[in-house]
Formats: sequence, structure tokens, C-alpha cells
Amino acid sequence: MASPKVGSSRAERTRAKLREAAVQAMSARGFHGTTTRDIATAAGLSTAALYVHYASKEEMLYAISKDGHEETLRIVRAAAASSSDPVQQLRALVHEYVVYHAREHVSAIIVNRELAALEPAHLAHIRALRSDIEKTAEDVLRAGAASGAFQIDDVRITMIAVMSLGLDVARWYHDTGEWTPEDVAARYTQLVLRLVGVSPADH
Amino acid sequence: MASPKVGSSRAERTRAKLREAAVQAMSARGFHGTTTRDIATAAGLSTAALYVHYASKEEMLYAISKDGHEETLRIVRAAAASSSDPVQQLRALVHEYVVYHAREHVSAIIVNRELAALEPAHLAHIRALRSDIEKTAEDVLRAGAASGAFQIDDVRITMIAVMSLGLDVARWYHDTGEWTPEDVAARYTQLVLRLVGVSPADH
Repeated sequence: MASPKVGSSRAERTRAKLREAAVQAMSARGFHGTTTRDIATAAGLSTAALYVHYASKEEMLYAISKDGHEETLRIVRAAAASSSDPVQQLRALVHEYVVYHAREHVSAIIVNRELAALEPAHLAHIRALRSDIEKTAEDVLRAGAASGAFQIDDVRITMIAVMSLGLDVARWYHDTGEWTPEDVAARYTQLVLRLVGVSPADH
Repeated sequence: MASPKVGSSRAERTRAKLREAAVQAMSARGFHGTTTRDIATAAGLSTAALYVHYASKEEMLYAISKDGHEETLRIVRAAAASSSDPVQQLRALVHEYVVYHAREHVSAIIVNRELAALEPAHLAHIRALRSDIEKTAEDVLRAGAASGAFQIDDVRITMIAVMSLGLDVARWYHDTGEWTPEDVAARYTQLVLRLVGVSPADH
């Protein structure tokens, strides 16, 4: 008896194509303004074929959000592990976080805008990932403050500001603008180092 | 012959009620996921009564966006005019801008999220207002850099970062959180002064 080969590379490619179509459709019309039919059509599939891979539009949003948050967590953890010096850790974290939000700005906007459309269990999982991302950044700031490398009045609000700066790049960044993702990242890294009291002469 | 008293206080109150209903509906389901019927119903009116005041859903979004941007421009211009000292100007600008985006976070999100839904002429007007807001902030930073009050490598990206920080408060701020709008504004003002190289001892 034939059954869909879940996990086969063909099924994976179809799911990736559906997620990409969902991101584009939701980017143009939002989660509630997008139908599963819109997504299936954009991916060149029938609605029935879409349902083989995703039980609902919300399942697709969750898959997109989970992918984005897991990749972000991987990025910030790699940055924190890249050095034992908090200045170098923060430099790497801001650079990679900003590059990611500039390069993936279309999906990053969906992922951050449509949280309220997730079902409770899915939202709880995404919130746990966000909490891990924030904790990683907060630990870097706290270590630098403790060692005297950083001058920080309030670690919590400083972490919020640093991550907010990087995340909001997804809103204003345009692929046709004057700056590459790396240009923005280099400038933002300098700004964040100032923000934590590392003078330009020190870095 | 009776005609609708456009500009009468009763018509103004009805329009304000419709705009508020539109903000709430679009906050929950986005511009494309919201119908004029949803908005009219939430405001306790018929769809026909809504059309007496607004020709379309897009006209409502434009009115909301125009109100929000005009108020923001007023706020940043008042801050720039409040002192001849760039440190005090920047302090006032960041404080008022952050308080506004925290207090009005629901409408601020709509206004910044749904720009692509505006008709070209309306979008051009909103873009002109945004440009005036950014120019006001950039002039304050440039004056402080020229006087030596600020240490800034790149005025343009610094302006973008400062305004982005303030705007993104609307995304993460919650009315039930631990901070008031003024608490966030006070902390963000200190962070921005650091960002432009004003050391804590100087302010």
C-alpha cells in the first residue's frame, strides 16, 4: 500500500515551496487576509495537496515561525560560544542577528507580526524559544557588566533595546537600498558597543 | 434640504468612533482580514452609515495613518524647539517619541504595518510626513555632532537606529507590563544619550 513518503526529499521540497508561498502571501495580505487556496495556488498545487503536508494555515504559520526562531536561537548561541570575551561575543551576536533580520526580512516580519494567530500550544513553544534567545543575549550583557567590560545601568532594558534594534531592521531594510545586510550589521555593531559603554578606542 | 453636517461635533465623534473600531479590528485581523462591515458593527453602525463618513476601508486606514504621523511630527518638532541645546533636544525627542509609541501602541502598529495597503497618493503623503519626522531627528543629531556635544560616526544610521528603537516599543510594550510608558522613555533616553557618546556624567 502506497503512503506519502513523509521526510523524503521530495516531500521536504514541497513543504519548503509551500512555506515560501505562505510567507509571500502573508507578507502581502497578512495571516487573516490569506487563504490556504491562495498559498496552494502560488505554490502550483491544489488545496487538497497542501493538506497532505499541513493540516491548516495555522500549522504553516507555526512551521515558519518555528524555523525562524530556531535559526535565530542557533545564531545567538553560536555567537555567545564564539569567544570567552563578552565584547567579542556581543559583536558577533549583533552582527549575525542583524544580517539575518536584513537578509530574511520578509519572513522575519511575518514571524514577529502574526504571533497572535498561533494556537496556544504553538504560541507557548515560540515564546519558550524567544525566551531562550533573550536569555542568551542577557547572559552576554551580564557577563560583560560583571567583568567591567560593559557599563550598563539596567541589563534587562539594554537587552530589550539591542534585540529590538536588530529585529526592527526587518521592517525598514529593503533589498534595493544603499546598504547590504553586512553594511547595516557593521554599523549597528558599533552603535551597540557604544550603547554598552565600550568606547570606540577599545574595540 | 437636510445634508450631513460634516465637521459638526457629532459627525466628528462618529468618525473618531469608527477610527477606533477600525484600529481594534485591524489590530486583531490585519487590514486585509478586516471588512468595512466588521468595523461598522464594532462601532454600532450600519455599513451604509460608515460610508457617509469614509468612502472605503482604505480611506479609514489613511485617516488613521495621517493622524498618527501628524501627531508624531508635532511631537518631534516640539521637542526640537524646546531648547537650543542638542542634548536637551534629543532627550525631549526620545522621551516624547517613546511615550507616544508605548501609550498608542495598538494604533502605532497598524500605522506602521499597513503602509503597503495605502493608495499611491495617500502613501506619498504619509512618506512625506515620515521624511519630515526623520529630518527633524537628523537635524538634532547633526547639530549635536557639529557642536561636539555628540560623538557620532554616521548621522544617518544613528537617526535610523534611534527612531527604530522608539518605534519598535509599540511592538513589545504591553499595558500590563512592569513599566509605564514614562519608565521605558526614561531608560531609553539614557541609552540613546550613550549611543551618541554623551557620557552619563555629562547629563
